[in-house]
Order: sequence, then C-alpha cells, then structure tokens
Amino acid sequence: MTEAKIEADKELPIIRTTRDFEGTAEQLFRAHTDPELFQQWCGPDSTSVRIDHWDARDGGSWRYAAVRGDEEYRFRGCFHEVRPDRIVQTFTFEGAPDGVALETMTFEELGGGRTRLHIQSLVDSFEGRDAWLRGGMQTGVDEGYTKLDGLLARGAL
Amino acid sequence: MTEAKIEADKELPIIRTTRDFEGTAEQLFRAHTDPELFQQWCGPDSTSVRIDHWDARDGGSWRYAAVRGDEEYRFRGCFHEVRPDRIVQTFTFEGAPDGVALETMTFEELGGGRTRLHIQSLVDSFEGRDAWLRGGMQTGVDEGYTKLDGLLARGAL
Repeated sequence: MTEAKIEADKELPIIRTTRDFEGTAEQLFRAHTDPELFQQWCGPDSTSVRIDHWDARDGGSWRYAAVRGDEEYRFRGCFHEVRPDRIVQTFTFEGAPDGVALETMTFEELGGGRTRLHIQSLVDSFEGRDAWLRGGMQTGVDEGYTKLDGLLARGAL
Repeated sequence: MTEAKIEADKELPIIRTTRDFEGTAEQLFRAHTDPELFQQWCGPDSTSVRIDHWDARDGGSWRYAAVRGDEEYRFRGCFHEVRPDRIVQTFTFEGAPDGVALETMTFEELGGGRTRLHIQSLVDSFEGRDAWLRGGMQTGVDEGYTKLDGLLARGAL
C-alpha cells in the first residue's frame, strides 16, 4: 500500500498531506466532488460512507457519516471554492463541533497521466493540530486512497 | 470614536479583533446575520455595502460589494456555522481570490446589556496575515463599528 506523506508544518498550525495518483487532475477533481464516487473510496476499509448532503460548488456545503456497524462518525463543512485545480472547504468532526479546519486541496499534474494531490489542513492551534496527528490519520487516509487507486485502475473515473 | 483592539497573535497566523458594544449578544448576532442590518454598518464611512447574496445558516454563503463611486471591492465566503454565540465563516477579498481567511466570531455577554465581540481571523501564512495588517484595517473597522454603535443607540436592533 502506498503511504501518503502526512507532515506537520514546522511553523504553522497546518498538516500537509501529499499523495501521487495514476490519474489526471480532472479525475481527482471528480473523485472529490462527485458524491457517488467520493463515497466509494473515502475513509478506512472498516467504514462505509453515507452522504447526507452534498452540493459541490462555491458556497455549497457537505455532510457525511462514516458508518461502522452501529457506530456513526459524522463530518460536515462548507465548500468555499470548487475549481478544477483547487478545492477550499471547511471541515468539522461533529463529535468535536467547535473544531474547524480550513482545507485547501490542489491537484498538480505531473505529466504522463499522473497527478499529485496536496492537502493543507489549517487549524487555530498547535495543540489541535497535534491531537489530529496523534489520532492516527495514516491508516484511514492510506486505505481510502488505495480504494481510489482501484477506482482509477479499473476506469471508474 | 472607540478603537477596536486589532492584534497579531505572537505564535499563530491569526489577527484578533476585540470590541465592546452597548448591546446584547442577541443584538450583535442579528447585526452580523441580518443582511438589512449588516449593510447599514459594515465598512468605512466612504463606502456603502451592496449585498449580492446572503444565506446566514450552517452551510450557507454570502457575497457583498463595498462600493465607493465607480469602484467596487467584492468579498465572499461561506457560513460554516451560525449559532447564537458564535459564527464561523470563510472570507475572501475577490481581488486576491487565492487568499482565504477562516473567521470565528464570538459574542461574550459582559452583563449590564454590554457585549464583547471577539473575531479571530486565521490565514495560512504570517506574510499574508501581516499584509492584511499593513493594509490599514483600523479605520474601516472603527468607522463600521461606530455606525453599529449608532444603530444600537437608536434602537434599530
């Protein structure tokens, strides 16, 4: 399984995630904006995604639940900007409703049909940032992106 | 004219603005969510506000122009959360569309019908933060809040 690079910025309360894909920027954009596609890959293998609301446009918003048996983990936010090379959105885990991240996703074409995904997650404290990192993002992120690799490989995008 | 306190955080890319008002938290909440009220006080005396879009709810969005003669300065964002004691929204000046701030506004009741407004504006670099500060926010902020003082004094809220 390819590991995404997940790093804490040295000077800013930011987590930076980077991951390369065998797909175009346009395909990655669709994977992040089309709810039918998004729910097929997002999150760890042990959960499934149920989209409760999805309106991927400037000023739209989103809400989904990651479901594992009887447990649900709900997430919500608004789409500040949705454009082909960049998505800016807010992100809250509803279990900690006062915590809000500002996420900026960019799709960098590498040539040869490959694309590098960059995600910058900005929060308002180093403590909050480090709590996210300690929560163990790596497995869920990697399992999700591996599912996305599979969708790309079989032409589903 | 009462000066709002506008300060750069020492460790985070945040501007903190604090200002006391002779009004309740509920009145300040209305001043920031009702577009008819908002356009009467926001911004410096030399501009007027034209609301282009306004939907103050969780997952809603907003857009307005500050108009001075033939000039227009447009701003837009989405409302991540709108609740009586706290508004979280994104904020972009459309003249610099890649810059996005995450703003958290809280209304702290001081007793005696007075309320302290706190605004935390979080951006993703110290350079960006300091450019905002150098842009001279103080006059526009103070002139706007003085108009809001006037609305409160004459019972318009």
